[in-house]
Amino acid sequence: MRKVYLAALSGLMLSFATMAQQNDSLVMKRISDDIMTRGMAYENLRFLCKNIGSRLSGSPQGARAVLETARMMREMGADTVFLQECMVPHWVRGEKETAKLILTNGREYALKAAALGNSVGTPAAGITANVIEVRSFDELEMVKQNVKGNIVFYNYPMNPTYIKTFKAYGDAGTYRGNGPSMAAKYGAVGVIIRSLASNPDDHPHTGATRYNDSFPKLPAIAISTNDADYLSNALRKKMVSRVYFKTSCKMLDDVISHNVVGEIRGTAFPEEMITVGGHIDSWDLAEGAHDDGAGCVQSMEVIRAFKTLGIRPRRTIRVVMFQNEENGLRGGTRYAELAKEDKRKYIFALESDAGGFTPRAFGVSGTEAQKEKLKNWAPLFYPYGIAEITDGGGGADIGPLKPLGTAMAGLSPDSQRYFDVHHAETDVFEAVSRRELHLGATVMAQLLYLVSEYGL
Amino acid sequence: MRKVYLAALSGLMLSFATMAQQNDSLVMKRISDDIMTRGMAYENLRFLCKNIGSRLSGSPQGARAVLETARMMREMGADTVFLQECMVPHWVRGEKETAKLILTNGREYALKAAALGNSVGTPAAGITANVIEVRSFDELEMVKQNVKGNIVFYNYPMNPTYIKTFKAYGDAGTYRGNGPSMAAKYGAVGVIIRSLASNPDDHPHTGATRYNDSFPKLPAIAISTNDADYLSNALRKKMVSRVYFKTSCKMLDDVISHNVVGEIRGTAFPEEMITVGGHIDSWDLAEGAHDDGAGCVQSMEVIRAFKTLGIRPRRTIRVVMFQNEENGLRGGTRYAELAKEDKRKYIFALESDAGGFTPRAFGVSGTEAQKEKLKNWAPLFYPYGIAEITDGGGGADIGPLKPLGTAMAGLSPDSQRYFDVHHAETDVFEAVSRRELHLGATVMAQLLYLVSEYGL
Repeated sequence: MRKVYLAALSGLMLSFATMAQQNDSLVMKRISDDIMTRGMAYENLRFLCKNIGSRLSGSPQGARAVLETARMMREMGADTVFLQECMVPHWVRGEKETAKLILTNGREYALKAAALGNSVGTPAAGITANVIEVRSFDELEMVKQNVKGNIVFYNYPMNPTYIKTFKAYGDAGTYRGNGPSMAAKYGAVGVIIRSLASNPDDHPHTGATRYNDSFPKLPAIAISTNDADYLSNALRKKMVSRVYFKTSCKMLDDVISHNVVGEIRGTAFPEEMITVGGHIDSWDLAEGAHDDGAGCVQSMEVIRAFKTLGIRPRRTIRVVMFQNEENGLRGGTRYAELAKEDKRKYIFALESDAGGFTPRAFGVSGTEAQKEKLKNWAPLFYPYGIAEITDGGGGADIGPLKPLGTAMAGLSPDSQRYFDVHHAETDVFEAVSRRELHLGATVMAQLLYLVSEYGL
Repeated sequence: MRKVYLAALSGLMLSFATMAQQNDSLVMKRISDDIMTRGMAYENLRFLCKNIGSRLSGSPQGARAVLETARMMREMGADTVFLQECMVPHWVRGEKETAKLILTNGREYALKAAALGNSVGTPAAGITANVIEVRSFDELEMVKQNVKGNIVFYNYPMNPTYIKTFKAYGDAGTYRGNGPSMAAKYGAVGVIIRSLASNPDDHPHTGATRYNDSFPKLPAIAISTNDADYLSNALRKKMVSRVYFKTSCKMLDDVISHNVVGEIRGTAFPEEMITVGGHIDSWDLAEGAHDDGAGCVQSMEVIRAFKTLGIRPRRTIRVVMFQNEENGLRGGTRYAELAKEDKRKYIFALESDAGGFTPRAFGVSGTEAQKEKLKNWAPLFYPYGIAEITDGGGGADIGPLKPLGTAMAGLSPDSQRYFDVHHAETDVFEAVSRRELHLGATVMAQLLYLVSEYGL
């Protein structure tokens, strides 16, 4: 009797579960249909890129982007929109860089160059010196006695055999980050790095360097991959007499800036906070379309879609335009500080900061139970091209939430084209595909829907 | 005793199998490393696009592409390179089309238009008539009594909610293919179709139409999606007085053309033929970069990589530049005819004709046993981004091999951007990503390696 009752109950529960899953599928389809048809992420990105432009922390455009994204979220119907104040570094590039090779035949070869973010400028007369090429820090060690008074040229390419380009970026990125101080340690007077780009091109790709306070701060530039090859060949052929470059970048005093937060309050568990975001700042060379205008407009799209479809989340959803990811992470750090002081619980955070390309996967972090729950939803995403939900994921801006026990996810779009445009003047609106961008927004909104319904 | 012997044997076999699989992984990695680093597909595509240009069947560029791809395969070291003669339709666009709305306010609105491939031209004076908009063939039936003497405008958009864009293309494509004859049935004098494009844009997207011989052949043009929206709105607001268009395209007599075949003879089973290809012809409006220069250079890359790496396939691999896929399929048909007459066995064919985008899957067709064998290799491809090997796949050009019992596969790249450029002037070299193209070539070469080693 009892067995029969249990069997019936379990049948009933199964059917509830099936019904719930079917309902989830339907809601996810409605989200997809809406965003793929009427989504505004692409037009909002156009605005960010074309009406505002580059949005470096501390710049006037950066400040304008704060106001405009706040306006967008208000117009989308967010229940609350507010700013979180934070101080940000204020680095300015100054005049356009000049860099050239002075060749042994008396001619000159102009290098396509850009100062590394956060780097100091050269003296007003620029730097003229011999250049020493190294392929790695190991090679630098081998030639350290020759470095003094010279310019070090790190010519370490992104490894083309890594199918996931972020792996190659992580690998090669150490020369941009640590190269200047490593060269300073041995008395160099300046640093040139090969741009972090996946393919040969003619654009310098900038990005932040990090000085080690134990050593002098050296002026540092990135040159295009084609120019890196040219320089390397010219050195091999003993064609280079000296190298000259001049930068007038500098770090000014910190200024006030803001994260922008738009909130839809949860109907059942408003004190359980779900965060989704991208970073609103960008490098100054381009429009920051893929990095990370895309993540910003995809995150805001969640509000638009939920409001349009009348989806009222059971938990509170917070869309955050993080400030200063590129050269300080002050916005992400501030967000976590405020979350720590908050009595509410920050259960989940999702970041999109890998470009507005076709979504392929989510990477997730958290407790085993949290990850298990997230991974169990994977089949619901197959129809939308998400092939897997894998271990390990999050993002720079949501990372500081980790000590609070927040489960995290990062959107993993296709990565093949990202480092063609990353931090270069080619990262413009035209490089973004409307369908790819909106498909990313779709799976993000779908994942937030599931977390808001079921918690973690 | 016997049992022990069997167990030992099966252990030995298992270890052989494991070793074989490990060896396969290593060879596949070598193929990937080579193509991602030194691949020539991208530069070959640049040549096809920039030095030759569009390659419509019967055109001088089409003939030149035959010679140049034959040269490329010879230079790559193919054991044999030869041509397969076939007759192809020779359709010419003639003068650039003009099309405009004559508005009730006396003004005109110029439409961005292109004649549909294979369509007849208008009289020299063009066609001026009223236009009747329909959203579907069902709607056409409803208004059929009003069609006589007028232009029918099929305004059926590609469905943006289909995540796989080829599904939307198949769905909407019937209006381009069958629309003119369906309108002719009811006495129309001309046809306008909304371009088959995934997104709003300002380019007409051409493509073949198919006349039904039971009805008069009507002149037919595609207009850009933005102009389709403009026309639809203008009609709704009663702003349109008449529509005018003029085309001077025509179908000339068939001409001689060729498939180009490059072969690497198999070392163990040379009589077992493996075919891989794309189509060398393209529409005339652009460079045919994604459609299907990409598939051509990816297929040729197999020869380059195998020769570079010293991989000697056990079965014969034939790389085929199919002729006339776009408006006749004469090359694919001829290839199968010759295969039928051939004593050798055509065991497998792989086609790449869905754009040079990041590869996501293979679709496979054949007997259950053939498909099973192909699908069992799926895990070997995961590191290269192939998420699955699914049922149903092949391609237009290899399709005619089906009666010979040939197992087939089609490369399925990401489809989000394809119909932004498909058959339009935007299908140019610059729309192709080097890494995406080379990754497609990589998984194609890897699959051919496995089939050449193990057969089917």
